Amino acid sequence: MRKGKTFVISGPSGVGKGTVLKALLEQRKNVYVSVSATTRTARPGEEDGIHYHFLEKSVFQEWIAQDAFLEYAEYVGNFYGTPKKFVDSAMDEGQDVILEIDVQGALQVAEKRPETILIFIAPPSWEALEQRLTLRGTDRPEKIQERLQRAKVEFQSADAYHYVVINDTVENAARELDAILTAEHCRVMERMEMIGT
Amino acid sequence: MRKGKTFVISGPSGVGKGTVLKALLEQRKNVYVSVSATTRTARPGEEDGIHYHFLEKSVFQEWIAQDAFLEYAEYVGNFYGTPKKFVDSAMDEGQDVILEIDVQGALQVAEKRPETILIFIAPPSWEALEQRLTLRGTDRPEKIQERLQRAKVEFQSADAYHYVVINDTVENAARELDAILTAEHCRVMERMEMIGT
Repeated sequence: MRKGKTFVISGPSGVGKGTVLKALLEQRKNVYVSVSATTRTARPGEEDGIHYHFLEKSVFQEWIAQDAFLEYAEYVGNFYGTPKKFVDSAMDEGQDVILEIDVQGALQVAEKRPETILIFIAPPSWEALEQRLTLRGTDRPEKIQERLQRAKVEFQSADAYHYVVINDTVENAARELDAILTAEHCRVMERMEMIGT
Repeated sequence: MRKGKTFVISGPSGVGKGTVLKALLEQRKNVYVSVSATTRTARPGEEDGIHYHFLEKSVFQEWIAQDAFLEYAEYVGNFYGTPKKFVDSAMDEGQDVILEIDVQGALQVAEKRPETILIFIAPPSWEALEQRLTLRGTDRPEKIQERLQRAKVEFQSADAYHYVVINDTVENAARELDAILTAEHCRVMERMEMIGT
């Protein structure tokens, strides 16, 4: 059976990562979107193992000591991370694993596992991103400018990525993402093992 | 306008390169299949500029001196080669260019233009290739064994390629080829230039 591969998806707030991933899952089988672990308490409606793996802080720290995370970080007193074990068992079952994480996390994963494919989701233009953030209506103008500035800085890190998918339409972006997953399974090493000599 | 890229397609005799390429052209626009130049005389039905660019030997040698070929070789007294100018003008017009050439030619192109994407078309198994060559009915058994042996040796060179497309069914192979072309246009450098910072 074909073994799965790991793909990291990053991109600025408001770029539509979630929508593109949803469209991908509708058109492609054998894709597992990784669920992060966290030490923060569950909010109403959040389920353990679905939205997050909720862990005690002592357990999280034990896992760090055991090198059980592909990447992790601390935000305002809580830990967030990607446990290796769920990623690895999905890949062993032949599923491609998608980690939706930020640039810092992506670079940690790339360091640990250089074979990971890094994909950055970008807006067609900065004006388009500004417009989307405005239409979303959740942020004040100053906050939108701050997000936009952060997005541009983050995009500088995209040169550490392998691919940039442009979310001009969800359909195009999902098609590009799908093509990248297909193409990466055509890599020479995987195929030479399949065919033999 | 998006600039085209060059893709090399190689693969053993009988693997079905022509059929897969035909299927690709039916489902994808902006693809130009390069026409080779040759010094051999045209056979009945062959048209200049369609099947080959038929050149006088003196002209071919002048073009070699001018470094006007991406690759060339001599077989039994005749020269064959890929003129740069048709490839370059197609790419400038935004077309992806496909060169259907052998492994030796592919390595010459890769040396001259390392950005070229090399794709090897392989059979699902060696038994499958043997069966296809037998069903084709054009070769005696010894000739088939010879082709099979050469195919296996050629496949050793596939590690110099970027991708291996498996022609199990024409539909799957064309889909993989299509995905590789799409994915290669999602490469970071091309996209960073498109979006700007």
